[in-house]
Amino acid sequence: MYDKITLGHGSGGSLTGRLIRKTILKVFRDPVLRRLEDSAAVLIRNETRTGKLRGMKIAFTTDSYVIDPIFFPGGDIGKLAVCGTVNDLAMKGAVPRYISLSLIIEEGLAFVDLEKILRSAAATARQAGVAVVCGDTKVVDKGKADKIFINTSGIGFVKVTLGREKIKAGDKILINGTIGDHGIAVMNARLKLGLRSRMASDTAPLNLITKRLFDSKAGPHIHFMRDPTRGGVVSVLHEALEGSGFGIKLDESCLPISPEVHGACEILGLDPLYVANEGKFLMFIDPRYAGLALKVMQRHVFGKKAAMIGEVVSQPRGVWLHTNIGGTRPLLQLETEGLPRIC
Amino acid sequence: MYDKITLGHGSGGSLTGRLIRKTILKVFRDPVLRRLEDSAAVLIRNETRTGKLRGMKIAFTTDSYVIDPIFFPGGDIGKLAVCGTVNDLAMKGAVPRYISLSLIIEEGLAFVDLEKILRSAAATARQAGVAVVCGDTKVVDKGKADKIFINTSGIGFVKVTLGREKIKAGDKILINGTIGDHGIAVMNARLKLGLRSRMASDTAPLNLITKRLFDSKAGPHIHFMRDPTRGGVVSVLHEALEGSGFGIKLDESCLPISPEVHGACEILGLDPLYVANEGKFLMFIDPRYAGLALKVMQRHVFGKKAAMIGEVVSQPRGVWLHTNIGGTRPLLQLETEGLPRIC
Repeated sequence: MYDKITLGHGSGGSLTGRLIRKTILKVFRDPVLRRLEDSAAVLIRNETRTGKLRGMKIAFTTDSYVIDPIFFPGGDIGKLAVCGTVNDLAMKGAVPRYISLSLIIEEGLAFVDLEKILRSAAATARQAGVAVVCGDTKVVDKGKADKIFINTSGIGFVKVTLGREKIKAGDKILINGTIGDHGIAVMNARLKLGLRSRMASDTAPLNLITKRLFDSKAGPHIHFMRDPTRGGVVSVLHEALEGSGFGIKLDESCLPISPEVHGACEILGLDPLYVANEGKFLMFIDPRYAGLALKVMQRHVFGKKAAMIGEVVSQPRGVWLHTNIGGTRPLLQLETEGLPRIC
Repeated sequence: MYDKITLGHGSGGSLTGRLIRKTILKVFRDPVLRRLEDSAAVLIRNETRTGKLRGMKIAFTTDSYVIDPIFFPGGDIGKLAVCGTVNDLAMKGAVPRYISLSLIIEEGLAFVDLEKILRSAAATARQAGVAVVCGDTKVVDKGKADKIFINTSGIGFVKVTLGREKIKAGDKILINGTIGDHGIAVMNARLKLGLRSRMASDTAPLNLITKRLFDSKAGPHIHFMRDPTRGGVVSVLHEALEGSGFGIKLDESCLPISPEVHGACEILGLDPLYVANEGKFLMFIDPRYAGLALKVMQRHVFGKKAAMIGEVVSQPRGVWLHTNIGGTRPLLQLETEGLPRIC
């Protein structure tokens, strides 16, 4: 159908899904990769001098950041690159420890901008408690990149084993705060929409709040977590259902959406459930521990507006919204998101 | 002196060194990063359920590949991205196990080209014995990247502890084959120089040959290894000397250089000692084990033309070439290499 890559292939929607399944996984057959999770959990084995094997379960993840613009309210590409990778490890039930930082710089980038981005990345790494231990710097000709692209990869140790195969009918779905802040803030900055008010990206290192959850009594009862970045909440919910026969019911009245994002989405004709976040995560948890987990989240600075927004149902399949006016409508997976280069 | 990034800042020469030291390390202060080695050796600690701490030494590395052209004789960006990262782990005395693959694709890249690159990366990973376990795919607008950039990061376990602080006066310096093949092959392909003959990049996964060395009796006597990529052999030798008072003497008559590269360098006015390689490594070793190591190398397909090319001297400082006509000339570190985007 396509013989060339389009922007939609990078949107996080079903077009991205097809690219990954039909082109990439056709070639790379490692079962860990095929799980298509935010991080890989791998066993590292070492031969000690006595010949005895020792093994350890490590979480490993990578992400490249190509966001446009590189500075936006609430963050910049440096902060985003650290948070995104730290968050991918946290979503896998891991405690992030070390990250790498690889820069692809377009010739002509101002040193002051580079320094600002690096300082922001360093401050975020300190906040998240991860050490930047290796890196790489490449420069390409003017017009062959867009100011700066950053890849961060990260490793940590797996503390809680999570996976979509653990999801059960009846599981409650929680989110740690308001939906769509990152996407709307970036759209406003890029398109110069001139929407006033305090619209800022939610970019944040989620390991600080997930560690509290792992350490709480609710920890062993968390089934699956994922951060709704490209493609927003709905895309992640569809991913969570893959390979299962379950459905998901969301309750519109419970969705935490700021008045600013709500207003901007009305004007732009967007649904916040499809808009990207960079400091939010969805958690699937045994219903008996959902209340406790919600309290743990609400006590943390990154979870003050946490809410229980829905649940897993044995049927019907798909993702459904129970609306404020008493109706039910399907939340379909999009082919491609409206705003490329959101991360 | 500079207020904007120039192509020279990505060349691997002293301009890159200044960017890393003055701009990047000013902000990131982790001692592991400050070692500026090909890979970071980090300790991963895990809290087991009994509360007992277990630790393991992991090598971790990252590299972004922006080579132009993306296909060249002897390889392509996919093969290069896997080899480069595998090699960085091998240079740290590690056995590579897992790698990540992150793509930044320019809108409009043909699917057939993408598939060719991915197949090449997958075949190389199989050859090197590493599993590709996580990845990421981004797409940017046409004109905002150059066809495709690939980041690979990798982890492995540390088998032999190497470091430039282990280098001693008297150490022999070995290389596993001919010098400058990658740079000349890429230059020929990019600039359409029309140089005929069998000029091909040497891109290869070096862990296959370094593992033989680590397992041999020479293994514990290797002091330092590094692959001479951007900036070539001379740049790596200068890096090796950093922080020490030693010098290095190379013997021109021992340098393995193919007639094709020699001829091309004559025409282009280049010195092969400054030209990039992607399947070569320099090894510093206790002189008593240099002969054994050389034999191990020469028995391997990636080391058939291995040679002992020089040694570490207590003085004079710097890198010196003992020429065929009996003279001695300094091999200075370049500000910037002639050919950007060589990897």
